[in-house]
Amino acid sequence: MGEFSFIQWIRKRQKRRKDVMLGIGDDCAVIDVSSDTVCLITTDMLVDGTHFDLKKCTVQDAGRKAIACSISDVAAMGCQPTVAVISVCFPDHTPEKFARELYKGIWGIADKYAIEIVGGDIISGRSPFCINVTMLGRDDGLKPIRRSGARAGDAILVTGTLGGSILGKHLSFEPRLKESLVLNKNFTIHAMIDVSDGLTADLNHILEESSVGAVLYEDRIPVSHAAVELSKKTGHKPLYHALSDGEDYELLMTLSRNQAKRLLSFGLLKNVKVSCIGEIVKEHGIRMKSSGGNIRHIKPRGYEHLKS
Amino acid sequence: MGEFSFIQWIRKRQKRRKDVMLGIGDDCAVIDVSSDTVCLITTDMLVDGTHFDLKKCTVQDAGRKAIACSISDVAAMGCQPTVAVISVCFPDHTPEKFARELYKGIWGIADKYAIEIVGGDIISGRSPFCINVTMLGRDDGLKPIRRSGARAGDAILVTGTLGGSILGKHLSFEPRLKESLVLNKNFTIHAMIDVSDGLTADLNHILEESSVGAVLYEDRIPVSHAAVELSKKTGHKPLYHALSDGEDYELLMTLSRNQAKRLLSFGLLKNVKVSCIGEIVKEHGIRMKSSGGNIRHIKPRGYEHLKS
Repeated sequence: MGEFSFIQWIRKRQKRRKDVMLGIGDDCAVIDVSSDTVCLITTDMLVDGTHFDLKKCTVQDAGRKAIACSISDVAAMGCQPTVAVISVCFPDHTPEKFARELYKGIWGIADKYAIEIVGGDIISGRSPFCINVTMLGRDDGLKPIRRSGARAGDAILVTGTLGGSILGKHLSFEPRLKESLVLNKNFTIHAMIDVSDGLTADLNHILEESSVGAVLYEDRIPVSHAAVELSKKTGHKPLYHALSDGEDYELLMTLSRNQAKRLLSFGLLKNVKVSCIGEIVKEHGIRMKSSGGNIRHIKPRGYEHLKS
Repeated sequence: MGEFSFIQWIRKRQKRRKDVMLGIGDDCAVIDVSSDTVCLITTDMLVDGTHFDLKKCTVQDAGRKAIACSISDVAAMGCQPTVAVISVCFPDHTPEKFARELYKGIWGIADKYAIEIVGGDIISGRSPFCINVTMLGRDDGLKPIRRSGARAGDAILVTGTLGGSILGKHLSFEPRLKESLVLNKNFTIHAMIDVSDGLTADLNHILEESSVGAVLYEDRIPVSHAAVELSKKTGHKPLYHALSDGEDYELLMTLSRNQAKRLLSFGLLKNVKVSCIGEIVKEHGIRMKSSGGNIRHIKPRGYEHLKS
């Protein structure tokens, strides 16, 4: 079983409500709550040993990451997060200090973005430490940006640099919320997602939802220093890590060439690098164009739970 | 550390937003989403070995229970659940059939109450099977019923019978949603909660939030057949189980004597037993009045996570 094929199985069988504008299959679901307001909702579960390792990081780091991932999901829709509920499973006999440290990590980032923790559930079990965050967001008159709006001819842009997040960024990343709101207010973004599974995997989510394909420009992929560092240990090329590693939590988007030109010269995002890494095409799949002009097919590769 | 004292610690330190009408400390939080609409939110985490035992029940039962618990939380506010997001952590190498059976259990009850699963997260780890449900609800013009509205002089009423849920009801219970909506539409309920931790523990939540106390009538507590059966094994009295066992998911409420009289003779709840089990008083704490007229103090007792 693969995570994504199982989600497709669920999605096909799920009965729909009229007030649900967007259900399973995007960074957030979108619910129509009144004539002029929508409510966004996203949920993320993180477990010790998979999403972080408490032997190598603090529980504050883990709490911060759980909140930051959910903020990034709301940012991926171009909307504003508001409140969250948090469930925690503590291993039996967890000391109180550990639990309080967790909340310090949570509040450190939640307060910064004015997100109120409005409820939760605290349980214990014969289980590794596990945390689930559900976050709500609101549109504030903006249109939530879906994965499904990419069109042939669009430019593909990504913020920041990619790869090797396991060396630190997967814990310390700043969700691109401010940038996301600036983008949604000032540009017509056709499709957007945050890079959590990996660049090609997340691009593939956009392509599948939009029924289009993509050509990537090999020499334009913004390879991070961490990807270079990691490549020395793994033997893979830095580009491999930039294309395949997850948890950079950068914004990957598509928009018209004209909008893209305007964005690339736009002042408000000057503190964050934005790269044009490719274009949307009609032909399905992902192809890579080298600097020499050679084109080859590549398979989306990234982290997938449940994959045997 | 105890679960409830830790929640109080969190609650005191949590920064508040203006659009949050009710934060930590009730069955649901209540968010002001537009001029005439509120959104309710509740979250529950269940883990194998604590909330159910997959050696003794099916994964369908576990999925059903997770949804039913959240429905019960929205019902405890007298409101209508609408959508849910579900996170699941599968133990590594879980077969696909197990995951599909889970969703059959989830849909079996979600479809019945027209609740759409709008999203989720599926992960795997070196962990027992764990599921988290976050459910949203809406007020539909009704006022969400809080824990904090009990007043001295109120009658205390409870639906159904109590105790021994571990013998089966903790998995098979029907959340009292229909009854809850009838109650909220037709009566002025001052305070309400669902009996999840145990009758005295949940009553104590109402008392603490309302700054009042209670006198219970020993001979009016609706002791279940299961409590009688369980008492044969445990050596405790059936009444002990009715007072202390959790997970009956009945509705516990307080309302004026006049409203209570009307409710007890009310036709719409005729298929569900309703018992008047005591009264709210000014003096804090819980006291028990025997049929002979003796009064004794009792301590709230029920399930609490993290209690050492």
